[in-house]
Amino acid sequence: MKYQIFWSLGLFTLILNNHQILAQTLPASPQLIPFNSSEGEQLLIDSQARQDYFRLSNQFVTQINQAYCGVASSVMVLNALEIPAPESPQTKPFRVFTQENFFVGVASWNKNREETKKVISADLIAKRGMTLAQLGGLLTSHGAKVNVYYGADLDLDRFRSLLRQNLSERDNFAIVNYLRKTIGQERGGHISPIAAYHQLTDRFLILDVSRYKYPPVWVKAVDLWQAIKTIDTDAGKTRGFVLVTK
Amino acid sequence: MKYQIFWSLGLFTLILNNHQILAQTLPASPQLIPFNSSEGEQLLIDSQARQDYFRLSNQFVTQINQAYCGVASSVMVLNALEIPAPESPQTKPFRVFTQENFFVGVASWNKNREETKKVISADLIAKRGMTLAQLGGLLTSHGAKVNVYYGADLDLDRFRSLLRQNLSERDNFAIVNYLRKTIGQERGGHISPIAAYHQLTDRFLILDVSRYKYPPVWVKAVDLWQAIKTIDTDAGKTRGFVLVTK
Repeated sequence: MKYQIFWSLGLFTLILNNHQILAQTLPASPQLIPFNSSEGEQLLIDSQARQDYFRLSNQFVTQINQAYCGVASSVMVLNALEIPAPESPQTKPFRVFTQENFFVGVASWNKNREETKKVISADLIAKRGMTLAQLGGLLTSHGAKVNVYYGADLDLDRFRSLLRQNLSERDNFAIVNYLRKTIGQERGGHISPIAAYHQLTDRFLILDVSRYKYPPVWVKAVDLWQAIKTIDTDAGKTRGFVLVTK
Repeated sequence: MKYQIFWSLGLFTLILNNHQILAQTLPASPQLIPFNSSEGEQLLIDSQARQDYFRLSNQFVTQINQAYCGVASSVMVLNALEIPAPESPQTKPFRVFTQENFFVGVASWNKNREETKKVISADLIAKRGMTLAQLGGLLTSHGAKVNVYYGADLDLDRFRSLLRQNLSERDNFAIVNYLRKTIGQERGGHISPIAAYHQLTDRFLILDVSRYKYPPVWVKAVDLWQAIKTIDTDAGKTRGFVLVTK
C-alpha cells in the first residue's frame, strides 16, 4: 500500500541520514492527522469529548527507554488523577510519579505499592515492554481503579462509545495498547493515553509517549479498533485499552 | 497580604506533611487562574493568541533539577521550532533536544554548538540557574535567532503587545524570566515558556516547567510585567523575556 512504500522510504532515509539532522520525527501516514498541524489543532478545539486532553497534556512525558511506553503512559494518568505519589529525589519535597520511581514504591502510607513489583519487574519491562493485563495490574498496584478491555471482546460501536464516554468525563482516563502498523506507523505494539474524540471525523487523539518518534496523532476510530484487535504474542491475547479512575 | 499568609500556611502544611501524600503541587494564589481547572481550560479555548500553545504542550517537560528551568524551557522551544537537534542516546536514531544533551553539543554539522559551553557551563547553571542574557546566548548557540528584552526597557503596553504578537504567530516562541513572588508564587527567580494570551481577562498562560510544584497558570499581564521588572542580582539587571525563532 502507498503509505507502506512511503514508510519504507522514510525509514531508509532516516537510517542513511543518521549523522545528519533531518529526521526529527518519522513522516506522517496519510491515514493519520498529526496534532502538530493547524488541522490537528482545530480538531481539538472542535471536539466535544476532550475533557481528558488538558490534564494529560500538562503531564505529557517522553518514554525514557524504548520499552517504557506503558510506564510513561501510567505516570501521565496517575499524575493527572492526582493519585498519591511516591517520593521523587529530584523534586523533593514535592511528590510526583516519574518513570524512575514507578517501580520503587513500598511506602508505608500505601501498602498497595508493595504490590507493584509483584506484577512485573522494571528490568523485564525495560526488555519486553508490558502486556495490557500488566498495565492494568501496575496501575491498580499504585491505587487506581482500572477496567481492562480486550479488542477481541469489543465491536466497533462498543469500542467507540466506551472511549468517547470516558473522554467526555473529567475524572477518568483511557490508555490504549495497539499495533502501530495497523494505524500506519512503524511498527510494533505500543501503549499511549487517549486524550480526545472528534465526532465529525470519527477520530481519536493519541498522545504518543515516544515523542521523539511521532507527534500526537488523530486516528480513525475504525483503524484504532482494528489495531487493538491484533494479538500480543507475549500475552497470547488481543491488545485493548484500560479505563482508569481514582 | 492575604495571599502571602495563604502561601506561608500552604508551605508550612507542605513541610509538616512531607511524609504524607497530600501535597501534589502548592496551592494556587488567588491572583492566578490554574490551567488545570475548567475555567483555565476555557480561557485557552477562547484565546485569540494561542498559536504557540499546542506545539509547546507537545514538548512540555519538567525541569530535571531545581535550577534547570532555563534549560527545560529552551529544550521545549528548540524542539517546538524543530531546530536540528544533537544525538540523544535514549532515543537513537531519533534526534531531540533534552536537558541531558543540551550542553553536550559539538556536532560537526553545527559548529555553533561548539559555542554552547562557552556561554555558561552545565555545572554552574545546575548551581545558580541562568540569567536572561545567558538564556539568549544558549539558545543562539544552538542555532536559534533570539531577541532579548529587559523589563527595565518596557512599559506595560509594549510588553503586552510584543508577547501577544508572538503568541498569535506559529513560528516563534517566547520564554519569560520573572520573579515568582511578584505573581503570588513561592518565591525566587524562574524561567518558563509563555503559551497563550487571553484578551478579555488580560492574562498570559505560563507553562511552568517545575510541573511538580505548580500547574500552568494564567497570570495578569500587569503582574507578569511587574515580575520581569525585578532585579536579578546575579545579572545586576532586570529580568525580562526572549523571543525565539528559527
